[in-house]
Amino acid sequence: MELFYDPDFTGNGILNESESKHCINVLRHKEGDIITVANGKGQYFKCRIINPHHKKCELEKIEVQNHDKPSFGLHLAVAPTKNIDRFEWMVEKAMELGVTEITPLLCQHSERKKLRIDRVERIIVAAMKQSLKAYMPVINDLTPFDQFMTQHASAHTYIAHCYDSDKQPLKNAYSEATDAILCIGPEGDFAEQEVAQAVQNGCQPVSLGNSRLRTETAGVIACHTIHLINE
Amino acid sequence: MELFYDPDFTGNGILNESESKHCINVLRHKEGDIITVANGKGQYFKCRIINPHHKKCELEKIEVQNHDKPSFGLHLAVAPTKNIDRFEWMVEKAMELGVTEITPLLCQHSERKKLRIDRVERIIVAAMKQSLKAYMPVINDLTPFDQFMTQHASAHTYIAHCYDSDKQPLKNAYSEATDAILCIGPEGDFAEQEVAQAVQNGCQPVSLGNSRLRTETAGVIACHTIHLINE
Repeated sequence: MELFYDPDFTGNGILNESESKHCINVLRHKEGDIITVANGKGQYFKCRIINPHHKKCELEKIEVQNHDKPSFGLHLAVAPTKNIDRFEWMVEKAMELGVTEITPLLCQHSERKKLRIDRVERIIVAAMKQSLKAYMPVINDLTPFDQFMTQHASAHTYIAHCYDSDKQPLKNAYSEATDAILCIGPEGDFAEQEVAQAVQNGCQPVSLGNSRLRTETAGVIACHTIHLINE
Repeated sequence: MELFYDPDFTGNGILNESESKHCINVLRHKEGDIITVANGKGQYFKCRIINPHHKKCELEKIEVQNHDKPSFGLHLAVAPTKNIDRFEWMVEKAMELGVTEITPLLCQHSERKKLRIDRVERIIVAAMKQSLKAYMPVINDLTPFDQFMTQHASAHTYIAHCYDSDKQPLKNAYSEATDAILCIGPEGDFAEQEVAQAVQNGCQPVSLGNSRLRTETAGVIACHTIHLINE
């Protein structure tokens, strides 16, 4: 099933320019063809093409499919890797696994201190369409760790780190059907002081197993742990 | 910790040419420096450089660290994706998650019908060093599905597919501390006849959750499911 994405589409009317171009020029759809447009807010519109214009494709609604919101929040807060491909790979996989919010973190040991959010959004839109999700996640700007703690430290916030201190496996710390905020540090781990700050603010320190994992692998498997527990 | 890999190294003597070059030319190690060499068969040799030759670096053993073999086999049998980058990412992540054997599969719907095994091996060696594993996995050539079934169909063989037929979640089908052979199909899924053949031969049909996953994502999360259950 091939999905189009237009956050402003409401069922009848003009499809946005980039999706019109993709629909008509790339996929070569014709008048009368049936396509499905997602608005990223839970709705899929099944539509007929009434005017196959390559910039202003006009659609007529046939039916609407409404999808329930995910029953729990899955917020991935992760320090972007130096290698942008690895970070984009991770973001794509997080989307396949149902992430609802993403915050790139700026940490003491961060290798990457700047991030183009538009690139991240493009990856996420493509992954949303490919994995047939109905809700676009919230995508935040690169956020300093301190500030993130001020906004999001809670009993549902899990900070994964590699130090030999008190921590339990994420799979034991997390309870089914609850929200989760997963904090994954940069290549050199969170600073000890960042972990201490998180714990002081009520976050739960966790382990992701005995293997030494790359940042982007840790991000994917943390999301998968939550996904698996809720299966 | 920085690890060198030489399958023929036994503690004292000459390090292979490519690792000698990396050690001396790239990392600029000197006589007297201490390095660690893994043989991929469970042993780490802590050694002193006695002759820093860039092709035949000579080492003297200080001590040996022996690692236990993994207590269960994790064999990933997966159809390589058309896009080779995606397949190589998956292989790298599978190694981080402790895979012990990899078989690229040639299936009815396979997009990729040829594979350079030397490239796969290079990715795996790099991942083994980075994730500090002690055992190199067995890496098989591209194998037709039929032949793979003849060799590996068993009650411990799990075939993941997207059809609406009897299947249970992998996390329920798998028992802790047992071997697992995970079969992941190509982009267009296994053919129905391939699934039927597997089931007839005693394999267990499984689901990897409700999300629609790319082949390489399915491979990583299937490995992670096994890894997580054994944590």
